[in-house]
Amino acid sequence: MNSIGTQFRITLFGSSHGTCIGCVIDGIPPGTLIDEVVMEMDMALRKPMKGVGTSRKEDDMVEILSGVVGGRASGNPLTILIRNANTDSSVYEKFREVPRPGHADFTALSKYGVDVDIRGGGQFSGRMTAPIVAAGTIAKQILKGIGIRTCAYSQAIGGICDEEERKLDDILRARSVNPVRAADATLGACMREEILAASSEGDSVGGIIKCVCENLPIGVGEPFFDTLEGEISKMIFSIPGVKGVEFGSGFAAALMKGSVHNDPFDVHEDEIVTLTNNAGGILGGISNGMPLEIRVCIKPTPSITKAQQSVHMTKMKIAELKISGRHDPCIVPRAVPAVEAAVAIILVDLCMRGGFIGRNRW
Amino acid sequence: MNSIGTQFRITLFGSSHGTCIGCVIDGIPPGTLIDEVVMEMDMALRKPMKGVGTSRKEDDMVEILSGVVGGRASGNPLTILIRNANTDSSVYEKFREVPRPGHADFTALSKYGVDVDIRGGGQFSGRMTAPIVAAGTIAKQILKGIGIRTCAYSQAIGGICDEEERKLDDILRARSVNPVRAADATLGACMREEILAASSEGDSVGGIIKCVCENLPIGVGEPFFDTLEGEISKMIFSIPGVKGVEFGSGFAAALMKGSVHNDPFDVHEDEIVTLTNNAGGILGGISNGMPLEIRVCIKPTPSITKAQQSVHMTKMKIAELKISGRHDPCIVPRAVPAVEAAVAIILVDLCMRGGFIGRNRW
Amino acid sequence: MNSIGTQFRITLFGSSHGTCIGCVIDGIPPGTLIDEVVMEMDMALRKPMKGVGTSRKEDDMVEILSGVVGGRASGNPLTILIRNANTDSSVYEKFREVPRPGHADFTALSKYGVDVDIRGGGQFSGRMTAPIVAAGTIAKQILKGIGIRTCAYSQAIGGICDEEERKLDDILRARSVNPVRAADATLGACMREEILAASSEGDSVGGIIKCVCENLPIGVGEPFFDTLEGEISKMIFSIPGVKGVEFGSGFAAALMKGSVHNDPFDVHEDEIVTLTNNAGGILGGISNGMPLEIRVCIKPTPSITKAQQSVHMTKMKIAELKISGRHDPCIVPRAVPAVEAAVAIILVDLCMRGGFIGRNRW
Amino acid sequence: MNSIGTQFRITLFGSSHGTCIGCVIDGIPPGTLIDEVVMEMDMALRKPMKGVGTSRKEDDMVEILSGVVGGRASGNPLTILIRNANTDSSVYEKFREVPRPGHADFTALSKYGVDVDIRGGGQFSGRMTAPIVAAGTIAKQILKGIGIRTCAYSQAIGGICDEEERKLDDILRARSVNPVRAADATLGACMREEILAASSEGDSVGGIIKCVCENLPIGVGEPFFDTLEGEISKMIFSIPGVKGVEFGSGFAAALMKGSVHNDPFDVHEDEIVTLTNNAGGILGGISNGMPLEIRVCIKPTPSITKAQQSVHMTKMKIAELKISGRHDPCIVPRAVPAVEAAVAIILVDLCMRGGFIGRNRW
Repeated sequence: MNSIGTQFRITLFGSSHGTCIGCVIDGIPPGTLIDEVVMEMDMALRKPMKGVGTSRKEDDMVEILSGVVGGRASGNPLTILIRNANTDSSVYEKFREVPRPGHADFTALSKYGVDVDIRGGGQFSGRMTAPIVAAGTIAKQILKGIGIRTCAYSQAIGGICDEEERKLDDILRARSVNPVRAADATLGACMREEILAASSEGDSVGGIIKCVCENLPIGVGEPFFDTLEGEISKMIFSIPGVKGVEFGSGFAAALMKGSVHNDPFDVHEDEIVTLTNNAGGILGGISNGMPLEIRVCIKPTPSITKAQQSVHMTKMKIAELKISGRHDPCIVPRAVPAVEAAVAIILVDLCMRGGFIGRNRW
Repeated sequence: MNSIGTQFRITLFGSSHGTCIGCVIDGIPPGTLIDEVVMEMDMALRKPMKGVGTSRKEDDMVEILSGVVGGRASGNPLTILIRNANTDSSVYEKFREVPRPGHADFTALSKYGVDVDIRGGGQFSGRMTAPIVAAGTIAKQILKGIGIRTCAYSQAIGGICDEEERKLDDILRARSVNPVRAADATLGACMREEILAASSEGDSVGGIIKCVCENLPIGVGEPFFDTLEGEISKMIFSIPGVKGVEFGSGFAAALMKGSVHNDPFDVHEDEIVTLTNNAGGILGGISNGMPLEIRVCIKPTPSITKAQQSVHMTKMKIAELKISGRHDPCIVPRAVPAVEAAVAIILVDLCMRGGFIGRNRW
Repeated sequence: MNSIGTQFRITLFGSSHGTCIGCVIDGIPPGTLIDEVVMEMDMALRKPMKGVGTSRKEDDMVEILSGVVGGRASGNPLTILIRNANTDSSVYEKFREVPRPGHADFTALSKYGVDVDIRGGGQFSGRMTAPIVAAGTIAKQILKGIGIRTCAYSQAIGGICDEEERKLDDILRARSVNPVRAADATLGACMREEILAASSEGDSVGGIIKCVCENLPIGVGEPFFDTLEGEISKMIFSIPGVKGVEFGSGFAAALMKGSVHNDPFDVHEDEIVTLTNNAGGILGGISNGMPLEIRVCIKPTPSITKAQQSVHMTKMKIAELKISGRHDPCIVPRAVPAVEAAVAIILVDLCMRGGFIGRNRW
Repeated sequence: MNSIGTQFRITLFGSSHGTCIGCVIDGIPPGTLIDEVVMEMDMALRKPMKGVGTSRKEDDMVEILSGVVGGRASGNPLTILIRNANTDSSVYEKFREVPRPGHADFTALSKYGVDVDIRGGGQFSGRMTAPIVAAGTIAKQILKGIGIRTCAYSQAIGGICDEEERKLDDILRARSVNPVRAADATLGACMREEILAASSEGDSVGGIIKCVCENLPIGVGEPFFDTLEGEISKMIFSIPGVKGVEFGSGFAAALMKGSVHNDPFDVHEDEIVTLTNNAGGILGGISNGMPLEIRVCIKPTPSITKAQQSVHMTKMKIAELKISGRHDPCIVPRAVPAVEAAVAIILVDLCMRGGFIGRNRW
């Protein structure tokens, strides 16, 4: 089903080259400010940046069809619509016979049959994250109401990795002027070079997105099944291209001793804190009040111009495939706002379920 | 909520040092063989092995309270009960005041208040995976009905990592006689040394579990939200100690070029396959017919005998904590059957939702 | 939450006097024919009929924003949009202070606060059933694929009650030309008189809608919680004005003896049938192959022009209220297609859950 | 699926003549008093009363397997177990071939196949309401915490109907000493006569249960789909034998004019009330602060000793069926506590969803 959330629910619709894409957002507390200027700024972060992104032009104008009266949420579902400007899909017809390696063409056709819409990736397109980003603006607005802030950035692209601990305000400042959404201008420039180098060879690169979340109250999440990690990772794996999700120390924990990994408790300004944060802000599936730290691995874009081996599905013969068209040689920068939105959306739902955010009045 | 699944649903109950733990399994197709001997074998895999595990003795006898008539599922929910033999919990009382670093004591007390049961980790204990393992036996039996097999093993413990591609049959053979549940005897012996070395220093180690799944039909999973990766990772993050989940190439994809990462399609025995499996058997959230490959990172056991810094929660002062009692210096081996069960349970649910397994008759 | 269904899901949005109303329909099997002409005919049944309905004019043009390619469902969610032609809501402002008796003004304002949209009934308006009716057309198309037909009609309006057993084909024929959606022309004319008489006094009348469903396979529904009756009634109570739902003999069963109420089994053309149908086609929450029979009571329209006692909510004083504007003196005829759609939508979901309708290919 | 509820969830297991029946209750706020004496009193209401009930003897001892520490809810799921004392099911074997009219034998066998457990009605038995009643005690305890009281009684049995408006305290007092759970001793005696008269002829009678609920806060329930009426009726239709559910005026509304049906608003002790309560405490799916009034129709017990026509399912021939064994000639009295529990359970869930009851601390 194309919906997620128990008390704050997103239902996604549309496809990459159909008339439109959009989503319905249910559970917004009535009275919540819906700031279309902030939404536009978030949407701008998703746009392909000159040189490093696709040249496909989409205005991605967000229309709000329902749920807002006088700039505030009215208590019934908010509907977001983004019309697709570019719907010429002739180029995609051939992928019905010769599926693109690394893409969902093959699984979509196998699962849904010939009627499935695979134009531009159909429902599997990265473009489907646009309404998620718009919904994320609203989620972040709700979180702000109880002081929670969440922010993502490109931590690694190709061989360039940002090893520093970054502060939320620094990230916000750096990434808005940085075409690859890095937290540091110099590293961002190097990451950009990685993308251009791959692009010039008709190839692509992947990377890692880090998302941090500050001021989450203690107690968000549940011990089993509906854990903070489980709910966030379920949502993040919806973003096309994600291959792994880790929290705090993540996979590095495999090589650590318990005495090093355990975060010692301490008292700071009358609050219980931990001296390190290998836990990534979560103990037993529940937030412990320290910053939430999530790392997401994004694979290199599957659409490359280099020739690739595929199969002609009706002839059942090997076929060489050359993909033309306009594609991002690296989707990491454009996935940054999607990861941020995804985390914000899940946090609102979990905060509502846990009683930290009221559903009715604001 | 302590339940997971849409058409095949597990509801967990009990706590580590209460009377019992158990679960209700709903959605088993009537007529499914319930083989208690196989279940016992799966449960045996979860038991602490001599030298490398806790000396706490639990028989972990599985009682089936309902849902079986004449050795077969009857169509109503199957209830599993495991009585707790060892319920002396006096040793845990002090953690109500001085929470263990890396444990859920602090978040549990903050979220649920003084009435919460944190004895032995309460509802956050690794012991809660015992009913999951028992439910996994039934899930694997259902999967077997359409030819699907799933199997997990310890791929890395401490500094020892198994770099080989392992075949499912080899894994099954090796791990049953291997105390650390490795897929290779020699590597398993080295892993055991890692555990013993850490244990002798009053410390603990972590590791990585790999789970493979063969013969999954093409088409399992959904494009958005209910993706194969998302549903599996949500379940796996319920297992205490998990810090990261990755599929196929996983985090290594961040350093790969698209031309290397994309798995070329090929024709093999009249089926479309891929030459490599960086996708880990999944494209666009949907199974592509290749083996499913999942890697799970487990942190080092937080319960160590070395002295640690904690905080006395009522005095709000730093306090040194020394944990005695019997704890596993490495939980990776015992988490192996839990990961395998978790994956099997989610696959049954997704196969039912996708119409690959019927719910009514068998 | 404004959505219903597990495998076939409707998410409703919009409000009576906002920009638009609509819904997202998820789970339509790809390839399903989407017949906009039939949809228009169903929508026409919902329109107010001359003399007996409101004079408010709504074209109720259904736009399909997503989910259809070449006249067939594409496998991703179908979005229905109906723009509101008439959004002058100045007349509704006073109900924020003096709530209409029998309406949701009072509860909406209490629950959602001042930001709630109560114009024209807001989200509580009978107008919200328009997208339900459109979704119902698609549900009926899916049901038709396995031979199931469902049909509703006005069985009683005011003092006129249709005591006859009606055949599905007769109902369909009669109600399309009958302004009150009765199954018999003569009775329909009497019912129309009842409405006109009430209307001329500034008053309103209620009635009963009967819905029958033929050819439902044996086995739809579950024994507990997700019973056929429970799922259908939950959906039907969403329709504004419904006060009661009964199946088969319904409330009349209270006065029957078991020997009369029990439907004797019989064999007819190699099928097991029952000689009577007091069960209304359901035994133990599960369809038994006999026609499904549902009766729904609709209260008299609360919007009447007669003066009524209400309360001024800020002054906390009794206030007389006179409602002007255009209102249906009886909503039974217009609720007929909504009940039919509601039943069809739930049956598709239950048939999918039970494996009677596949979700993936068509 | 055998579970219901979003934030307060009941999962039912077991069958009438298996080892046991029971349920898991998830979402009890930690610290909630679990009073086993009150639970026993509620369970006693469900027992067959001398003369008018079955002579089958079940002690119905409730064991609490998990979720309680020191008499209070511990924050993890509470598991209720009731062992079946009487499991001789030989008498039921013949119904596998010749299904009982009015029973679920036929649909159960058709849906689940030969492995289904139909002994004693299996999962379809009225006996499955025993754990519901036990769960209801806990639900009522939680409701009590915010001042809500709920209570059901037999309003009609056979031809005897109680036309009076009854006060909650009067009902509670009368029904505890009254074998048919009526709100008036004299009427109760007449109802008892109705049952005995039917019983003496080998027949059975049905009736109507009324449930009232006082002090529900304004704002419980949602406008569409998750309405107060919809959620309650879904739950109530799970109780075996229910044929109809109505709220407030119910089916009588079909014959009322709007000017009579609309409840005029008034001010009473600084609160907005209504002068009449045809709405049954609900406007637009949401509680309006007036008493909730629900009426439930129960069919006559299908198990009668009179000879009935059925069909031999393998021979596909008409067969006469005579049911011996011990059956209630009227299940209305025993369904009274089940209806009360069902309503209480749903109200807790809806109050939690609406933020009227917190989930975490108590």
